[in-house]
Order: sequence, then C-alpha cells, then structure tokens
Amino acid sequence: MTMKPENQSLQSVNIEGPVCPTPLPHNDRIVLGHGSGGRMSHDLIARTFFAAFSNPALTARDDAARLLTSSGEQLAISTDSHVVSPLFFPGGDIGRLAVCGTVNDVAMLGAEPLWLTAGFILEEGLEIETLQRVVASMQAAAQEAGVQIVAGDTKVVQKGKADGLFITTTGIGVIRPGVNISGAGARPGDVVIISGPIGDHGIAVLQARGELGFDSDICSDTAPLNGLVSALLSANAAAVHVLRDPTRGGLATTLNEIARQSQVGILLEEDRIPVRPAVAAACEMLGFDPLYVANEGKLVAIVAPHAAQDVLDAMRSHAYGTEAAIIGRVEAGAPGQVLMKTAIGGTRVVDMLAGEMLPRIC
Amino acid sequence: MTMKPENQSLQSVNIEGPVCPTPLPHNDRIVLGHGSGGRMSHDLIARTFFAAFSNPALTARDDAARLLTSSGEQLAISTDSHVVSPLFFPGGDIGRLAVCGTVNDVAMLGAEPLWLTAGFILEEGLEIETLQRVVASMQAAAQEAGVQIVAGDTKVVQKGKADGLFITTTGIGVIRPGVNISGAGARPGDVVIISGPIGDHGIAVLQARGELGFDSDICSDTAPLNGLVSALLSANAAAVHVLRDPTRGGLATTLNEIARQSQVGILLEEDRIPVRPAVAAACEMLGFDPLYVANEGKLVAIVAPHAAQDVLDAMRSHAYGTEAAIIGRVEAGAPGQVLMKTAIGGTRVVDMLAGEMLPRIC
Repeated sequence: MTMKPENQSLQSVNIEGPVCPTPLPHNDRIVLGHGSGGRMSHDLIARTFFAAFSNPALTARDDAARLLTSSGEQLAISTDSHVVSPLFFPGGDIGRLAVCGTVNDVAMLGAEPLWLTAGFILEEGLEIETLQRVVASMQAAAQEAGVQIVAGDTKVVQKGKADGLFITTTGIGVIRPGVNISGAGARPGDVVIISGPIGDHGIAVLQARGELGFDSDICSDTAPLNGLVSALLSANAAAVHVLRDPTRGGLATTLNEIARQSQVGILLEEDRIPVRPAVAAACEMLGFDPLYVANEGKLVAIVAPHAAQDVLDAMRSHAYGTEAAIIGRVEAGAPGQVLMKTAIGGTRVVDMLAGEMLPRIC
Repeated sequence: MTMKPENQSLQSVNIEGPVCPTPLPHNDRIVLGHGSGGRMSHDLIARTFFAAFSNPALTARDDAARLLTSSGEQLAISTDSHVVSPLFFPGGDIGRLAVCGTVNDVAMLGAEPLWLTAGFILEEGLEIETLQRVVASMQAAAQEAGVQIVAGDTKVVQKGKADGLFITTTGIGVIRPGVNISGAGARPGDVVIISGPIGDHGIAVLQARGELGFDSDICSDTAPLNGLVSALLSANAAAVHVLRDPTRGGLATTLNEIARQSQVGILLEEDRIPVRPAVAAACEMLGFDPLYVANEGKLVAIVAPHAAQDVLDAMRSHAYGTEAAIIGRVEAGAPGQVLMKTAIGGTRVVDMLAGEMLPRIC
C-alpha cells in the first residue's frame, strides 16, 4: 500500500515556516534542555559522549546497541535512566515506565528482550511502601513483557540530594536471525506507520502534576511493545526497515532522527496522524504541539510499500496497535528533513525539538 | 599451601564479642543504612526486591547474574548506580569508579567484561567541563579494562533534585568455558587470599570530603581488576572457587556474604590482613575498623589449598596484586560465620556491617 493522494515530490513542495534550526545557546552548564531528547540532547551527546566513547555500536545512534558475541549471537543492549515526576501518574508509574522504556528500546532493533537490570537511587526519607509499590509495578510490567529482572543495585543519598526515586534500567535481548532493523534503514517509497494516537504520556504526566488546569481522563500509554513488534515482524520481517518509539521529543524528533540517519526525507500528512481529542484540546490550551509530546507505548514502523498493508493489519490485530495508522512516506528529496502536509493544504518543516518543553517526563 | 599455624577448628575456638546480629530498626522509610551494602541493605533487598523479582539469576546473590543464551553462551551481567560524593577524590573520580565497579562485578564471575552501558542523571547547573572530565576518565578506565561503552542515556533534573552527577553502569561479559565461580563455591580447606591492602578507597573519599581532620597521601585503589582475574585464572582456573570485590561494607561484609552463600565458616588471621599504616592510623583516629571500609580495586579469591601458592604467585606478578596475601581459610564449622584470630591471640566474630558507616562512598 502506498500513500494517497500524495504524489508530489518533496523537492517541489512549497515550504512554509523556518528551515534553519534554532541556534543553540552556548551554555557552559547543564540546563534542562540537555535532557529533552531534542536538539540540545543531541548536541551534548555528540560533543561530550560520542567524542570520548566513539565506537560503532554507540555511534550507530539506534535505540539499542547491536553487539555480536564470539558464538555469532547478535545481542541488543540499551539503557535508560528514569527521573519522571511525579512517581505515579494516570496509566503508570516510574516502575512501569522503567521496564517498558527499556524493553521497548531493545525491541526497536527487532530483538526479543530477555533480561533487565535495575539500579535504584533512593532519597533518604522515601517511604518503603512507595518503593514496594513501584517494585510491584515493575514486576507486573516485566511479566507482561516476558522479561526477567536479573540484577540490581540500590544506593541511598541524603534527603535533598535526589527526588524520591530514580531508576536506571538496562535491557538485553537477542536479535532474531535475518532481522536487520535500524534508524538508517529507511528507503524512498517506504511507508510510515504509527501504532496509535500520540501525546498521551506527556499530557498524563502534566495532569498528574496539576499543571493541566482542568480535569481530563487522559492516561499514559506506557506499555511494553515487544509483543506488538513480534506481531508486525510476523507479517513480513524483511519489509520492516525501521522501528523506533517516539518518547522524549515526540514523534517529530524521532522522525528527524530517522531522516538524518537514513539520509532521506519524510513527508507526513497532518490529518492522518492520530491524536485523541482530549490530548489535542490540552495541547491547544497549553500551546504544545502533540508532535513533540512524549509517548511511552507507541512505535513508528517504516516499511516497504508492498508490505505496508499486511504490517498495518498485523499491528491493528494487537492490543497495543488497534489504532495504528499510515501517516506518511519516505522520499528521496530533502534528505535529513521531515515535512508535513498540513490539514489546510500547505507544507511545513517539522524540526527536531530544540530545547525543553516538558522536563522529567520519563 | 595451607594456613599456618592455624589447626584449631572453628567449633572449638573461644569466641569473644557479640554473636547475635544487631537488631534492625523497623523503619518505614529509607535511611542511609539501606545503602550501606551491609545488613540493612540485605534486609531491604530481601524484603523488597527479591520478594517481587524472584528468579534464579537474581537470587543467586552473586556480584553479577549468570545467564545462558539460546546458543549456549554464558553471559555475566551486573549493574551499579554510583553516587559518590565528592565527584573527584585522590586516586579517582565518579567516572573511573563507575567503569571499574561494574567491570569488577562482571569479572568476579570469572567472565571477560566486553561492553558497558552508562546512564547519566545530571543536575541542572552542573558544569559541562566537569561532565567532560568525568567522561574522559570513564573512557580512560574503559580502555585500560579493554571494554567498550556501547549505549548510554542522559537525563537532567532541576537544581536541588540531584547532587551534581549520578552514573549507573551496566556491564556485560562472557564467562570463560569451564569456569564456575560463585559466592556459593567456598569449600572447607580452601584458602582465602586478598589482592592487597584494604580500606584505601573509603579513607581517600573521607579525605576528599575534608572529614579526615589531618593530611595524608592515601589514594583510592579504584582499578579494573579483569586483568588480575585473567592472571589468577591462568594459574589454575578450576581451583578458583570464589572471587568477590569487597566494596561497600568492606572485607568483613563480603566474607560474611560468602560464608552464608557457601554455608561454611571463614577463619581470618588479623595479623595477615594487609592495611597501609596511614589507613590504619586514620581508622584508629576515626574509630573505624578497616575490615568494614570500602575498597574499589581489591578482590578476595577463595582457592583450593593445593593451588593457593600458584594463584598467589600469579596475583603478585600482576600490577594490581603485588601485595596479595593469604589471610585465612575456610572451615566446615560455624557455617555462615566469619571469625578472626586477633593479633593478641583471641578469636572474635566478624559480623556483617549493620548500619551505615560512610554514606556515598561509591
């Protein structure tokens, strides 16, 4: 299945809005924007971490590192620190988030996640009952995902030197033989699929902070996506070129990363991107663009056109993909850029998140 | 080589000092003692983490989890969060510590560490130059250990919600074929070897905090021990039953863990345990027992008696084991207990660290 009615090439579109990236402030200190997942994070990572730790597994810039053991087994390994505030929010908590976030990063390489480790940093004075609720939630999420938490560590810092509870999870999975999924795999003609409505997680956390200013029943989408990945790979594994979960920085940032890694253009159709009415309303009131709001239970699949309908059907038949939708396509023009055909008929550049919109969302 | 002149069995010794463990305070909130690595940590782990996450790899209670891939490869996986204060101290910094701590935990299963991941939690306002110094130190330690840092994550929290910089590292290694090292492997008759003088790290960190009250030239021993492990395994891999690095809680806590896991007694000889004079003096002034002070570049090897001299020689020929010494032996009596023949000729119980002596030492 290919996108309709879109036959316009990216090179010929009438571009609205700024093309130049916003210049970065040259701070000599860490600011919240460095943790946004957007442009400032990328800049910090490139200047500080890649500059020191350069190796092919790291600089591939995928959600997980791809590693080959001496016996020829391909492992996927990923790590995430979780600092979400508050610890509990509608639809989830830091424990469920820590398990799902890492399970998903491993799954996005087409790997079967098997094992997790968890490092806990606890603030003196944290209620042990709170910790136990979080740990129970981690175990429930791990069971749902079919992974085991095999190693852990606990550190305690003085009151005022942390914020309740931080959890760093690392996931290890085995990449299925014959699967070759990477952010660098998108090809012109490929179809862009999102697994469901965007922005739920970020708005649910804001609501839990009391920053929404009104009542809503928006729940975080935090979920383990390895089952959904299995389902869509069963439809046609060879046709799935990219998988990525649009967390910090939202769908816009994730697609920009893919466009850069693959050196392709991505053209979205605004009116095909699913957003729940309550999330859309909250974003409008708060001045947010849902394209930049974090998700924790959604994935983007970039798929060869001939297999797109089969992959979409497989996703829709899974509980975490019932609202999956084709939202755009990959083009040869404008490599490294994401453009969007707006609902009113124009086309605008969709840039990476520049600074920080919603700190401590994950 | 066996211990001399010690031929007394543990059952017949005249025990000085308390045998009963100190009762734990029943707090409903996290206190610093829960991060000590001693009895309160063990209690929290058992009640909270093992209760929820129970699986054989976790509850084996080794420094790293032992995992079998479908192709039959045995992996060792370990994680540690690092919250040391201050970030820089004589002989090391949080970056070197984060790499070495995790490399060592993987190596203590007789595995060759290959890959690390690193999750950074940064406090808003941290100087980027500080972060870059830490990252450069991590890379230097990783190069020394021969491991690659293959995946990472960065989160930023608001000023006052963390303490500069926390780093959680996870290490993945491959267990050498035929090696079967575990805290449960000590057998009566085995010889206990320490790789060098104890207590340097804890005292060096205290000194960096200005809490020593006098000047000293004590440096942390923070070092990657995988090379030392390779050297001692080359001497006689099958004879090496236990390896463990005595970090938080010190040598006393580590030996208690081994005595419990293996259900054996351990009898130490006080005057054989190497302690640098400056560390001994600092401990005496501060009222600390060096047996409970953290090390970050030492290991305990428990070895079959017939191979003890060969293993000791191999350790002494390695840069990180030049001062290795035989300090005790494993006995069938008093299972789960560590006893020490004191310099003045008595014998006392050496219990696990109960609460917290030195918070945020790693």
